Amino acid sequence: MKKVCLVIGSGAGVGGNVAKKFAEEGFHVYLCRRTNQEGLDNLISEIKDLGGEASGSLLNVIDENSIEDIVTHIEKNVGPIEVAVYNIGAQIGNRDLKDTSYKAFEMGWKMATFGLFRLAQVLTPLMEDRQSGTILVTSATSAVRGNKGQISHASAMGGRRMICQSLNAEFAPKNIHVAHIIIDGAVDAPDTLGKMLGEENFQKLRESKGMEHDGLLVPERIAETYLHIALQHRSAWTHEIDLRAYSDQAWWNT
Amino acid sequence: MKKVCLVIGSGAGVGGNVAKKFAEEGFHVYLCRRTNQEGLDNLISEIKDLGGEASGSLLNVIDENSIEDIVTHIEKNVGPIEVAVYNIGAQIGNRDLKDTSYKAFEMGWKMATFGLFRLAQVLTPLMEDRQSGTILVTSATSAVRGNKGQISHASAMGGRRMICQSLNAEFAPKNIHVAHIIIDGAVDAPDTLGKMLGEENFQKLRESKGMEHDGLLVPERIAETYLHIALQHRSAWTHEIDLRAYSDQAWWNT
Amino acid sequence: MKKVCLVIGSGAGVGGNVAKKFAEEGFHVYLCRRTNQEGLDNLISEIKDLGGEASGSLLNVIDENSIEDIVTHIEKNVGPIEVAVYNIGAQIGNRDLKDTSYKAFEMGWKMATFGLFRLAQVLTPLMEDRQSGTILVTSATSAVRGNKGQISHASAMGGRRMICQSLNAEFAPKNIHVAHIIIDGAVDAPDTLGKMLGEENFQKLRESKGMEHDGLLVPERIAETYLHIALQHRSAWTHEIDLRAYSDQAWWNT
Amino acid sequence: MKKVCLVIGSGAGVGGNVAKKFAEEGFHVYLCRRTNQEGLDNLISEIKDLGGEASGSLLNVIDENSIEDIVTHIEKNVGPIEVAVYNIGAQIGNRDLKDTSYKAFEMGWKMATFGLFRLAQVLTPLMEDRQSGTILVTSATSAVRGNKGQISHASAMGGRRMICQSLNAEFAPKNIHVAHIIIDGAVDAPDTLGKMLGEENFQKLRESKGMEHDGLLVPERIAETYLHIALQHRSAWTHEIDLRAYSDQAWWNT
Repeated sequence: MKKVCLVIGSGAGVGGNVAKKFAEEGFHVYLCRRTNQEGLDNLISEIKDLGGEASGSLLNVIDENSIEDIVTHIEKNVGPIEVAVYNIGAQIGNRDLKDTSYKAFEMGWKMATFGLFRLAQVLTPLMEDRQSGTILVTSATSAVRGNKGQISHASAMGGRRMICQSLNAEFAPKNIHVAHIIIDGAVDAPDTLGKMLGEENFQKLRESKGMEHDGLLVPERIAETYLHIALQHRSAWTHEIDLRAYSDQAWWNT
Repeated sequence: MKKVCLVIGSGAGVGGNVAKKFAEEGFHVYLCRRTNQEGLDNLISEIKDLGGEASGSLLNVIDENSIEDIVTHIEKNVGPIEVAVYNIGAQIGNRDLKDTSYKAFEMGWKMATFGLFRLAQVLTPLMEDRQSGTILVTSATSAVRGNKGQISHASAMGGRRMICQSLNAEFAPKNIHVAHIIIDGAVDAPDTLGKMLGEENFQKLRESKGMEHDGLLVPERIAETYLHIALQHRSAWTHEIDLRAYSDQAWWNT
Repeated sequence: MKKVCLVIGSGAGVGGNVAKKFAEEGFHVYLCRRTNQEGLDNLISEIKDLGGEASGSLLNVIDENSIEDIVTHIEKNVGPIEVAVYNIGAQIGNRDLKDTSYKAFEMGWKMATFGLFRLAQVLTPLMEDRQSGTILVTSATSAVRGNKGQISHASAMGGRRMICQSLNAEFAPKNIHVAHIIIDGAVDAPDTLGKMLGEENFQKLRESKGMEHDGLLVPERIAETYLHIALQHRSAWTHEIDLRAYSDQAWWNT
Repeated sequence: MKKVCLVIGSGAGVGGNVAKKFAEEGFHVYLCRRTNQEGLDNLISEIKDLGGEASGSLLNVIDENSIEDIVTHIEKNVGPIEVAVYNIGAQIGNRDLKDTSYKAFEMGWKMATFGLFRLAQVLTPLMEDRQSGTILVTSATSAVRGNKGQISHASAMGGRRMICQSLNAEFAPKNIHVAHIIIDGAVDAPDTLGKMLGEENFQKLRESKGMEHDGLLVPERIAETYLHIALQHRSAWTHEIDLRAYSDQAWWNT
């Protein structure tokens, strides 16, 4: 069986493009997204048309046993998960504290924090048995600094970062590579940012950031760095890296 | 009515000593702890014997509406909460990932992260109306770096730190002072560390850290810095501070 | 002989006010500033009029042996230096790289970085002999993040912060307390910020920051925290703390 | 003329291997090292034998005008410097403060901090004219935390990091990519670590770190990440990245 790259959160942005990149590299990519079976099927077809191997299914990470069952399913029926990409965001836009419901706050934690913990729980014993594995974790500016309106997102992502560091300390010596990837800017992703802003505002943002299609973070390009990190030799592993468009300021300057 | 200092998590360590210190300063201190009515009563008596004002009740922060109801109760029956100290820890000792249950992980989040969010939700509107207030948040090394065995604690505390920073950004301009206080070392606290280690091991640790009673962080001394921060003039507020015993190395060195 | 608090960099802002505060606390304060004998004399008189003890001399920290000789002089003729405050800034305003001369860059390092190293060299052996001492280091946002126009300042202050951490690791166990104090905002200091901006612009800034004299960091208030840190019991020492006006955003948000 | 990759500090470790990697990629590599003309010639020959283009010269970065002149020379006679790698270390081993001479401290700054500033001064105007360029800066754990014995190294590297961040803020929008690469562990480099430890101790360290030649950071592998960063599309640039061997703990854990 082929080595599998599992991408949890594979819409048209970072996740989908990471999937394509790993398929090119020879992985069977297994795609999960919460909704939109058609979008999922299209992405699978697209990858196959390019000569890659892909399969997938809808998955709501907050459902009980959802992540656990899909990992079991893949390992049994598709192949060993060599690389897992946890690409579930929890950005709900800027909301004052009073407008951040308990439910929204808990949902953020379930998606951004608890889901990754659960993935690590089910996956690391398998990787430990194989003495090999990689977990790439998409993260955000909010993982390293809180901000007005970001209380839910920052809290969830700050927790996510500490999970990654705890996994590094426990599992790096067991040859399991966990990387925390800080996407420090807006991604040119119609499925997430596009939906949050609405089509018109999204297009305005794109244009304001430069006509050369590189003022926002381009998912295809982000994917190249994901692949590089997954392929790093274990004598020189990255635990944390940041990414932003040349035209943006780093979070510590904005 | 007197100004109130609410201390959530007031055992014999940091919380109890912070309570005593604020009582000396003239606050009515309202003490909450999860269990041990006798311990609570003793502390209240002790404060009163020293000429202070104190009251309190048992409180399990993870119970629905517990924090919300106690704040309402205090504001109605005791006085306006000028200072709140969130002193709920979530340390469960070093546990490998596989020994960290979903339930333990969620409990850590409920205590260390969600509880603080809930406190801020119910308290900040009142403080905003009064255009004044202080929230002191006890935190830990785990808020700034993950480690082997600390996945639950670090994830919860990392989230807590980002809550504080988000509150800073939203509420400092409204004259509400939130401070994130990193206790970077073991506290000489029989109720928490003592219970976790057992009496004998706790005594051994104390002795190994120096015979002068200052190799561990002494809660009375920690309390002095809590008071200082609460009394800072708003032209020079601290958002983050660390504390450790002179004989310990800082987290970035150990 | 009385215990001495040496303040290197004691104009009308942080340094001068820290000096007054420590004089109130019973220290003999020894004041050093680069220029303005009259200003120095006035400050000394002012402290004496309030019942404090003070002396001082002009000192250019970049002169060879200047710091070394003054420490020797004080220890011999005034008293043991229990507390030293290194309050030399190196802000030269925002300058693009091309407008930052080699000389300016080197000067920044000599003042902000090398001077502190030299102070530590001459002072720590004396403190080690006495098994006691405190070094308070004024620092700036630039110590924790570089920025456009701040290449000289940030480089010098970043070096300063690492000096403090290295001193913590070596000297805390020897009962020498070093604290890195990040002043994260503009200080209401006519001698430094005032001169840099010019009188008119400085007044405008003051007014734009609020009519209640607390939109800028007020030096008198900063001094209270300096004193608190110097008086911390060694079982609960702070190595790093930040200070800013309530109306400002923290550096990680601006 | 071919595009040039200038490597300042190209011994047998990171620098030499980065040079080889960029030569493979089609750059003319220009090698500078302080001493050992034979080692330099051998590396140039080796690169040429593999079909690459290389030249170089001895360079002592602390000499006045040394960096400035070599850049001018290369731009005139070899080709435009598209990529510069600043790979000058300043590690002098663990030395207590009292054993760290003023001269050693200043030397550290000249090599690690001022040299990079000077390189940026002379190179960024040329890159700005071409609207393109990359500066890769080798850095160390000491750039992010001070430690006992590391006062000179940490101060110099902390300054280096702030230079990088200041350059990011000023030059990223001008399409000049500066990356701060934290090598968080011992590199398997005979020219630097090997010489510092002595042959026998170096061999012992190697063996203690694992027989598979990957317990130390392997320079060939580090070089792959340098190349990746230099080739990143400008829509997804990295400003800071860390690297360490799988078998090591991250600096925040050790």
